[in-house]
Amino acid sequence: MPTLDRRDDVFVLDLGDGENRFHPDWVAAVGAALDEVGGAGGPRAMVTTATGKIWSNGLDLDWLGGNPERRQDYVVSVQQLYARLLALPVITVAAVQGHAFAAGAILTLAHDLKVMRADRGYWCLPEVDLGIPFTPAMSALIQARLGPQAAHEAMVTGRRYGGTDAQRRGIVDHAVAQDAVAGTAVELARAGAAKAGDALGVIKARLYAPVLAALRDTAHPLG
Amino acid sequence: MPTLDRRDDVFVLDLGDGENRFHPDWVAAVGAALDEVGGAGGPRAMVTTATGKIWSNGLDLDWLGGNPERRQDYVVSVQQLYARLLALPVITVAAVQGHAFAAGAILTLAHDLKVMRADRGYWCLPEVDLGIPFTPAMSALIQARLGPQAAHEAMVTGRRYGGTDAQRRGIVDHAVAQDAVAGTAVELARAGAAKAGDALGVIKARLYAPVLAALRDTAHPLG
Amino acid sequence: MPTLDRRDDVFVLDLGDGENRFHPDWVAAVGAALDEVGGAGGPRAMVTTATGKIWSNGLDLDWLGGNPERRQDYVVSVQQLYARLLALPVITVAAVQGHAFAAGAILTLAHDLKVMRADRGYWCLPEVDLGIPFTPAMSALIQARLGPQAAHEAMVTGRRYGGTDAQRRGIVDHAVAQDAVAGTAVELARAGAAKAGDALGVIKARLYAPVLAALRDTAHPLG
Repeated sequence: MPTLDRRDDVFVLDLGDGENRFHPDWVAAVGAALDEVGGAGGPRAMVTTATGKIWSNGLDLDWLGGNPERRQDYVVSVQQLYARLLALPVITVAAVQGHAFAAGAILTLAHDLKVMRADRGYWCLPEVDLGIPFTPAMSALIQARLGPQAAHEAMVTGRRYGGTDAQRRGIVDHAVAQDAVAGTAVELARAGAAKAGDALGVIKARLYAPVLAALRDTAHPLG
Repeated sequence: MPTLDRRDDVFVLDLGDGENRFHPDWVAAVGAALDEVGGAGGPRAMVTTATGKIWSNGLDLDWLGGNPERRQDYVVSVQQLYARLLALPVITVAAVQGHAFAAGAILTLAHDLKVMRADRGYWCLPEVDLGIPFTPAMSALIQARLGPQAAHEAMVTGRRYGGTDAQRRGIVDHAVAQDAVAGTAVELARAGAAKAGDALGVIKARLYAPVLAALRDTAHPLG
Repeated sequence: MPTLDRRDDVFVLDLGDGENRFHPDWVAAVGAALDEVGGAGGPRAMVTTATGKIWSNGLDLDWLGGNPERRQDYVVSVQQLYARLLALPVITVAAVQGHAFAAGAILTLAHDLKVMRADRGYWCLPEVDLGIPFTPAMSALIQARLGPQAAHEAMVTGRRYGGTDAQRRGIVDHAVAQDAVAGTAVELARAGAAKAGDALGVIKARLYAPVLAALRDTAHPLG
């Protein structure tokens, strides 16, 4: 399960040490962490990392298979989590120490900055190969954060990007050695802690107004 | 006239061996080819190429000059062709072996991937120099596929891009030697054939929903 | 105060030799210059430069502090100035010989092309550090001209870009030596003078239709 730890001005959210899929309890725990970071006040920033070979593999398809009648509510809850993170009035940095796939890869895009391990691990949107289209809101989030070419390639071809490729494509900001991922992310967060506050929240809300509206749409989350 | 040929999983659409301008009969023939590719079912992809020095020079201005009263219907038919290609539920690859100008250059942008000859041939939107503004829907298509900087430069300055420049600008994905254009395109198509299907169609439809709506607008195609 | 000078086909607008902040009289003078350039007819283009270490530092916060009741009208006037420049039916080139900050940096983005001094001077959006969010229309203008990654970084982190960094990020088109800034800009303008005219105006109006609508919104300029 996710845990939140504070080191001076930097909150460190650890997504877990497994596949870190979006089980409803996991979504609730990450949401509670965002509440804590958002509500803390004062200079602060957040780093989101995980333990092991996987950052996050995305939606919990096993749970979803056993609870088909809760599909729409589940997608609403995931999309609202993206919206809260995207609009959080603090600088957020994804420290992607391992694989980020599907809805997990999309979660990286809701952060302000992304640091990825250069030598191993993939960032990938395999939805086209799984036969599962992106919801309209997730599609909008991906497009709003990547350039048109990168969004098209990632979404239509399902290409797997190593850290260096991901940086070249503008998907992540930094690709660094394994042992530098956490440190680089914490340093970026620390440098941005003084920016936390209402102005940053408004800037983000206006940058992504249509995406946030789509992510918060509870009536038609599946398109 | 355009011809369609199938080699295993890859349909090859040859736009012709002349200027390959969009005469109404040419538009109908390309449309029929897209119908065949779209309706075929199973693993498949499409490569669009041409024979000779020109990939396509765009609108058939001679025909349009002789049929001014059909201007609006003609633009509707061209824009619907763009929409069908852009939303085709298979991977499409433009093998740009020669010049792609104006509406012909825009046609390349409706493909998923573009391979261009590196040493000769230009990709160019000369509309500003011809004094013919882009329709709103064509403008939207160009902007949706290029980054803001590339779209602005291409549309406002009318710059001619050789293959290498076009790749650097993100207009095409690959710039290769003349004798490698077709082979590279077919290889990309073959590698993507298994992605054909409904999910790919929905992914594309959501990626380009506003562009597709503009291209399919039969009431105000000229803005 | 701004001055306008014509050298053959190229109008040169000098924003001034101080901080070149947007005092209402300054806004009116720049607006009058745009009227003159827009209305002149024939082949022509415009270069916008300034004298000294600063291109423009943006809004006149001193004046605004003394005239709080005129804040909304003032923002309307600035946004309309951006709109007129963005839609001007001639090629416009910003020759950024010195610092461009905040609303001054945004003014560079309303030009077709930007040339920046490579060795000194910064392009910067410090709004997040000043605690002043961008208006929705200014946010839309920045996003429409920069890629998603560059817009996010510039707006959320307030990073200061030297000329070379700004070019790498696609914020400016050329970063050149100090003594080449004006000459490069004038040469680009001269090369584009023949493009002036109605078609160019329509191309720009369609490229930036939603941004122009937001900039021209007099009812809710502050969001």
